[in-house]
This record gives sequence, structure tokens and C-alpha cells, in this order.
Amino acid sequence: MKKERFASRMKTMESNEMAQVLELAAIPGLISFAGGLPAPESFPVEKIKAASIEVMDTLGRQALQYNNPAGYKPLKEWIAKRMNIKGTKAEGKDVLITSGSQQGIDLTGRVFLEKGDVVFCESPSYLGAINALNAYECKFVEVPTDNQGMVMKDLEKLIDENEKGKFIYVIPDFQNPTGKTWTKERRKKLLEIAKDKDLIVVEDNPYGDLRYEGNDVESIKSMDTEDRVVYLGTFSKILSPGIRIGWVYAGEEIMDKYIRVKQRTDVHTNSVTQMELVSFLNNNSIDDHIKELIKLYSNRRDVMIESINKYFPKEVKLTHPEGGLFLWLELPESINTKKLLEKSVERNVGYVPGGAFYPNNRQENTIRLNFSNMKEDDIKKGIKILGEVIQEEL
Amino acid sequence: MKKERFASRMKTMESNEMAQVLELAAIPGLISFAGGLPAPESFPVEKIKAASIEVMDTLGRQALQYNNPAGYKPLKEWIAKRMNIKGTKAEGKDVLITSGSQQGIDLTGRVFLEKGDVVFCESPSYLGAINALNAYECKFVEVPTDNQGMVMKDLEKLIDENEKGKFIYVIPDFQNPTGKTWTKERRKKLLEIAKDKDLIVVEDNPYGDLRYEGNDVESIKSMDTEDRVVYLGTFSKILSPGIRIGWVYAGEEIMDKYIRVKQRTDVHTNSVTQMELVSFLNNNSIDDHIKELIKLYSNRRDVMIESINKYFPKEVKLTHPEGGLFLWLELPESINTKKLLEKSVERNVGYVPGGAFYPNNRQENTIRLNFSNMKEDDIKKGIKILGEVIQEEL
Repeated sequence: MKKERFASRMKTMESNEMAQVLELAAIPGLISFAGGLPAPESFPVEKIKAASIEVMDTLGRQALQYNNPAGYKPLKEWIAKRMNIKGTKAEGKDVLITSGSQQGIDLTGRVFLEKGDVVFCESPSYLGAINALNAYECKFVEVPTDNQGMVMKDLEKLIDENEKGKFIYVIPDFQNPTGKTWTKERRKKLLEIAKDKDLIVVEDNPYGDLRYEGNDVESIKSMDTEDRVVYLGTFSKILSPGIRIGWVYAGEEIMDKYIRVKQRTDVHTNSVTQMELVSFLNNNSIDDHIKELIKLYSNRRDVMIESINKYFPKEVKLTHPEGGLFLWLELPESINTKKLLEKSVERNVGYVPGGAFYPNNRQENTIRLNFSNMKEDDIKKGIKILGEVIQEEL
Repeated sequence: MKKERFASRMKTMESNEMAQVLELAAIPGLISFAGGLPAPESFPVEKIKAASIEVMDTLGRQALQYNNPAGYKPLKEWIAKRMNIKGTKAEGKDVLITSGSQQGIDLTGRVFLEKGDVVFCESPSYLGAINALNAYECKFVEVPTDNQGMVMKDLEKLIDENEKGKFIYVIPDFQNPTGKTWTKERRKKLLEIAKDKDLIVVEDNPYGDLRYEGNDVESIKSMDTEDRVVYLGTFSKILSPGIRIGWVYAGEEIMDKYIRVKQRTDVHTNSVTQMELVSFLNNNSIDDHIKELIKLYSNRRDVMIESINKYFPKEVKLTHPEGGLFLWLELPESINTKKLLEKSVERNVGYVPGGAFYPNNRQENTIRLNFSNMKEDDIKKGIKILGEVIQEEL
């Protein structure tokens, strides 16, 4: 028998839906609701240029040398300070700078997951997380969700049925893909259950700053009194994804593990960029920048929702996200949105078929729509076309 | 029984010698021969600043957006072109941009290694690679080396004795930690054996451009006719480690696996930096820069060797590296260099005890010395002190 050349984890990567999504988002001229891309016109190019100049003028040699695996201290402290403002008691020493939040997810798998371990996640959940954690050959257990978050009695039952549970992965603010936000009560209850069952909670919060209506809900991490919650943050959606800067925030015992793993993975995150980011944050108000994003994206969301209400058949259900980048469609069960995509792309409109967001029980009649990347006119135009394409399938 | 909170791979990370090395290298004012740090005065700060400005002026929005997982095409093509000049037939499509060469090593573990698989490596070998691959819970088999490379009959025997062999990891140019370079004959023979036994060869080449005497030897990859060799390169030692840009070069089937893994790990490497690097490479001659490094580092190497000959007891053996950043000492077997380090640091001189470079059969009477980071006067001063410290132990 010929031996296997590649590790068995490579079998989890045979499907490449995430790559397809990114490719789709990149077809020039396509009206794409596919990727989770920020609006490129929002990038503060001149301010980042000024930050680059400042770093090279003042810290050039230090920036270009090897640096601390856990990250650049002033950036860690800025992040901790901001987390404090947002209600989570945090110290810089408990922050690890990662190459985007995706790396935070990957390192989470590495710290916690053994082959065969169970991850509990929302149904549906973030495709990038499913893909990253799958590489650790874990088993996903999808927990039903309603408009307030995971359904807690289902979660409890599923935990009892799956003894190899390691952690619960959730995106409680403007979830990817559904755009839904958990209530405070559900967050509290989740933490109680995690405590009772001795599970870790991984709280992924890339979109929390982008709220267009309603009030902020406390993070699960802010309610955590026993270092049970690992919090993942990122600058990708509030500043730029190309700079690949995210962070992990966790208690000391867990953080120590993450830092050991990080060092073995890539030594440290690009230090030039970390220093530039600090310069940018010191010389500019990130809150002013976020306010602009909120104005831009909330308009786009509104235009998308209005257009859907105007152009889509009544059979299509949609979520009403209070923030973030996505909304979620449920079409009649007879429609397979993966097949529908071919027709849609023929007419120059792209989206992500929702099936891939379910690790096990794919619901192929769903669609994730991104509203941050396209301008309002294109949103109107694209939604009108998509409405026609759906109508033809009914 | 309380269940384990962390994955079993975390047990491989309990020792943290690499972190200690980096900490040691960072004590202010210490004469440190510890880290593998380039000379900070060599960093072309003004030229990198100019590249940052150019990228923000011409490609700002594109740079700050999500980009291709495999890397920025012009950078991949530049690398392929350079590999061609250096004798390896390469195309840009077969290059993956990584966050430093350390990530290349980590991704290699991920693509190939199953728990219990065997990695054959030089004895001693690079600590960062041992640490990264260990996280995949592999078994290392150390292959004896002489001044021409791995001893081939030992390699063959060890492969036959270890049926779960996956790949052979080698640093054939100015090896870390010994500074030794393989002959062409050994490289050819290695590839023959790998073919015969159906093993992958991982050729890690961070230092190849830094040759101070003698002639270049063809890379193993350049002799590879059946996509059996994975080649790892980096800009860390010829430009800057802080920018975290390295690459993997492999044949199509293998490269496809790396790209899938890369995407799941951190989506892509910082695209702002990739574009800046292209701007730097287009506007400057990397060969001129390397020439300056060669001048600087070969002087430092010469000063270190002269100082060792002058100040060290005759019982200490040293290698004569033709390039790279390191030389390697063997002290009398009675001396434990880990213990000796305490006395040395008390007298303000740091180095890396060699034991950590052996995954199994630690030889605690060895030392790795870096000669790139310290100025000539400090090298003289530090080596004199180290000589005295060793003398006192005899």
C-alpha cells in the first residue's frame, strides 16, 4: 500500500468554498454581495501614509527588527484601554496581536482542539471559522438559534449528548452570516452553562463597533469572572483588512498558551504595521472614523433592505441586522441557492450561497448578502436583478 | 476525572527555550551573541519609507483591502525570477507568500504531519523548526552530520528503521546552528535517497545569499525533477525580519495544499507590506544591499574567529562558516553551557546553549554564536570575556 503523502487534516480542506467566495468577489465589474469586504473608499490612505512616515522617521530600525511574539506593547495597551472603555476590564499584558482575527481563530483551534473534540457553534456560523477549526479535525455541533441568540435549552441538551465538548464558538454581535445580535440575557445564560459544564467560550467580535440602531449589548467577556472566555477582536472591519491586525484577549493561563503557539507559528505579527497602527491611532480618532463607516454602511443596509422589500418575492424571508456587514435570506426550500448563483452571476450579480455556513446540516435555500462593499446605486440594481432571478425560480 | 482543558500538543510547548533566547537577546546593554538578529544599522529605513509612500500614493485602497491568499502577484513573480537567476526553474504561480519563513515551516507541518509521523533532520538542527514541527506531535530522528552535510549511510539506515517517515528537513547553506554548508554531492545523494524512499525534502534556505567565501552550491530544489522538494525562502536575513515576509516554493500539487492551509490560517500575508516590498525591490538593487551585508557580516565573522583563536582555551572546537549568521562551538564534554550561561550573563555576555538544537540527544557542551548583530569592538570584548568564563570551568 502506498503511504499517504499528506496529513489527514488536508481531507477537511478538499472543498474550497471560501476561496470561491473570494474569487467571486474579485470578478471585475461584478455587483458583488459576496465577500465581507469593507468599502475601499473608506480607507484612510493619507493618514496611513502619514503613520508610515512617522514610524520610519522615529522607530525605523526597531520596527524592521525582530520583535516581541505577543505584540508591540503600546498597541496591546491601546487595545486594552479601548476594551475597558467598552466595558471589559483588560490589561495590555493579556492581549496577543495576531495576523487578523482569522489567525486568532486558528490559534484557538491549536490551543484547545484534539482530533475528535467537539465545538459547539451557532447554526449557521462563520465559514472562515468552520474552515479553520475543521483543520484540527474536530466535530461541529450546530446549536439552533433564534432572534435572541443560541437556544439555551438546545445548547444544554447538545452539550450533555457530546462529552468531548471543548468550547462554544459564538459571534454575538451582528453575526456572520445572519446579522443577528444576542440579548444580554442569553449571553449571561451562555456563560452560566459554560461554567456548569466546564467549557470555554470563544467570543468572536469583528463587527461590534458597527452598530446602526439600538443599543450596545455587553460583551460576554465583560461578564466573565473566571477567565473562561477567549475574546477575538480585529481592525479589519473598522480600519483595513489588508494590514492583517487582530487580537486575542484572554486570562493569564490561557494567554500564556496562545503566546507559545504564536511564536512557533510565525514568530510575531509584522511590527512595522503594528507601530504604524499605533501612530495612526494616536494621531486620529478611531471613533470619528467609525462614525463615518456607520453613516456609510447604515445607508447601504437601508437601501438593501428597502430594495429587497421592493423587488423580492414575498416568499423570501430576511433578517434585520442592527449592525455589521451582512444580512441573511431564507428562500423557499425548493430553491438551491448554489445552483441559483450561476444564473445570478450570468446576470452580473454575486452573493454567497448559505449552505457553506452550516458545518453539518446545510440549508441550501439560504443566502448571505454583504452590504458594505457596494455603492447604493449598485445595491439597488443588484438587488433588483437578484429579485428577478429568484422570481424565475418560484 | 477532570478533562484536559488544552490540546495534547500544548505539552510539546512546555519548555520555552526559544522565548528565553529572544529575551536574552533583548537585555539592554548586553553583548549578545544569542538571537539570529540582523544588524539594525543595515536596515534601509529611508528606502522603505519611500516604498511606503509610493504604495499609499499609487495602490493605497488595493493594499488596504483583502487580497489574494497566495500573495501579491508581482512579488511572487519577482521571487520566481530571482530563483531562476539563482538556478532554480520557478514560476510565480508556484510561490506562496508567508509571514516569514517560520510560517513556511509551520505550514509544512500542517500539510504533511500526522501525530507520530517522523521528521528526519540534521543533528543539530534549527530550534525554531524543531519547535514549530513538534507542535504536530511528530517524532524527530536526528541524522549525524559531518562537514559535507548529513551522513548518507546513516540517513538511509535511519529511514529504514523508521517507517513513518514523512520528510527530511535540511538547511544546506550556512546551517543554523552550525554554519556548515552541504556539498553538491551530498545534495544530489539526498535527493536520490528521498526518491528511492518516497520522502519529501524540505529545503530551508534563509541565509544562502550571505556567502563570505567560496562558491555557491546549487540548491537541492534546483536538482528536483519530480516536485519532491519544498523550498523555503525569506527576506528576514537579507532585508528585515520585522516585515515578516517569506515564501514557500513547491510544485503544483503540493502548492495547492499550502494555499488552502494558508487561507485558513490567516487569510493572507499583510498586503501593504508585500506591495511596499515590490516597490523597494523595483527601485533599489537587492544585490547591492546584500553586498553591503556581506561586507559587514564577513568582517564580523572574521573578528569573531580571530578573537576565539586568541582568547579561547585550545580545548574549544569551532566551525568555520563560509556564510550566514552563526558559528558553532564544541566545548569539553564536562562543561554544561546552559549552566555556564548564568556566569556569562553575569559578566554581560549572552549566547545560546546548543542543547536545545538537538530534538532528542542534547549535547549540552555546545554553543551557538551569532556574529551579525554585534559591532566589532563588542565582538572582541564579548569573546574575550566568554573565553575567560570557559577557562574558569576547565
